[in-house]
Amino acid sequence: MRILVVGAKGDIGQAICAELQPRHEIITAGRTSGDHQVDLTDLASVQALYQAVGPVDAVISAVGEVKFATLAEFTPDQMLFGLQNKVMGQINLVLAGLNVVRDGGSLTLTSGILDRDPVAVGVGAATANAALGGFVKGAAIDMPRGLRLNVVSPGLLDVSAAKYGQFFPGHVPVAATRVGLAYAKCVEGLPNGQVVIVDG
Amino acid sequence: MRILVVGAKGDIGQAICAELQPRHEIITAGRTSGDHQVDLTDLASVQALYQAVGPVDAVISAVGEVKFATLAEFTPDQMLFGLQNKVMGQINLVLAGLNVVRDGGSLTLTSGILDRDPVAVGVGAATANAALGGFVKGAAIDMPRGLRLNVVSPGLLDVSAAKYGQFFPGHVPVAATRVGLAYAKCVEGLPNGQVVIVDG
Repeated sequence: MRILVVGAKGDIGQAICAELQPRHEIITAGRTSGDHQVDLTDLASVQALYQAVGPVDAVISAVGEVKFATLAEFTPDQMLFGLQNKVMGQINLVLAGLNVVRDGGSLTLTSGILDRDPVAVGVGAATANAALGGFVKGAAIDMPRGLRLNVVSPGLLDVSAAKYGQFFPGHVPVAATRVGLAYAKCVEGLPNGQVVIVDG
Repeated sequence: MRILVVGAKGDIGQAICAELQPRHEIITAGRTSGDHQVDLTDLASVQALYQAVGPVDAVISAVGEVKFATLAEFTPDQMLFGLQNKVMGQINLVLAGLNVVRDGGSLTLTSGILDRDPVAVGVGAATANAALGGFVKGAAIDMPRGLRLNVVSPGLLDVSAAKYGQFFPGHVPVAATRVGLAYAKCVEGLPNGQVVIVDG
């Protein structure tokens, strides 16, 4: 398959590529890295990305920023930032891709563990992650041309634990290889409308 | 208790008031109706509402607009509308209320069934509803002064079926009285961080 991976240079993106690269053609994209640059929050930029990449069988997103702060410090603007970036960015990728991905192809997004196992500074992530789950469930029933749509929701990756582990007290890190497999399931298998949980 | 109900004139708001009015002091608010007017999408308006109402033991929101369209017709702007209205509006009510609601009080939001039982034109609602569930789960663990935060997720109300039933093929309407009871559970009981599902 020909697969576009957006956010390929992040920890999750690298796990995805490590799993899929041996048996597929991978085109990478990122805000500042990869074969193509894209700003997912800008629909025109997303459309230009699809135009530049050409037909693909699968689109995978492993991107999305949110703000981290305690509830007492959290502002509406910080919350909106996560909705505009992690949520709308990935939704833009889906909406613009509906007429681009080949018949029977798939789109796979990335959320995360913090809506089912929250941490003190994670309310923005919890909101964004859950929104993506709802989007996938709501959109999957209406996908055209046999397209499928799923979201992978991984726990803290083992390779990310040194950097982010302090914010996840007691969380069991997930092997990056297992996270990569979840995307393979979404791309090479036939799930649709699923939140694919990968916990440690 | 002294309870502020935002969106009191809607079908859900009326069910809430019918349940709670006999044993509590209810102050109503709405965009154009009720004792006080408020634009939940404007943080300053929300703060002014709390200033005008004074101390309360509970805040209940039964508001929030989203756009309805098929996935093929859905635009990013329509999606963002729901996130800014149904999601951020209710989040503004919580964030501005954290220092206002009395010790041990509660805040109760409203989502809906469409993220767990989607319909053809409901992807915007599915996304917004799920986001609210994630927000409540992420925020509830960090509430100050014994405050509690929950969201009621009702199915299509029986009293709304004549107007909206056409969009919910095969859905079993929920008695409005049962929906009212879910809010009573959140206000008079002790749940925290719960998505309180009320299905038919």
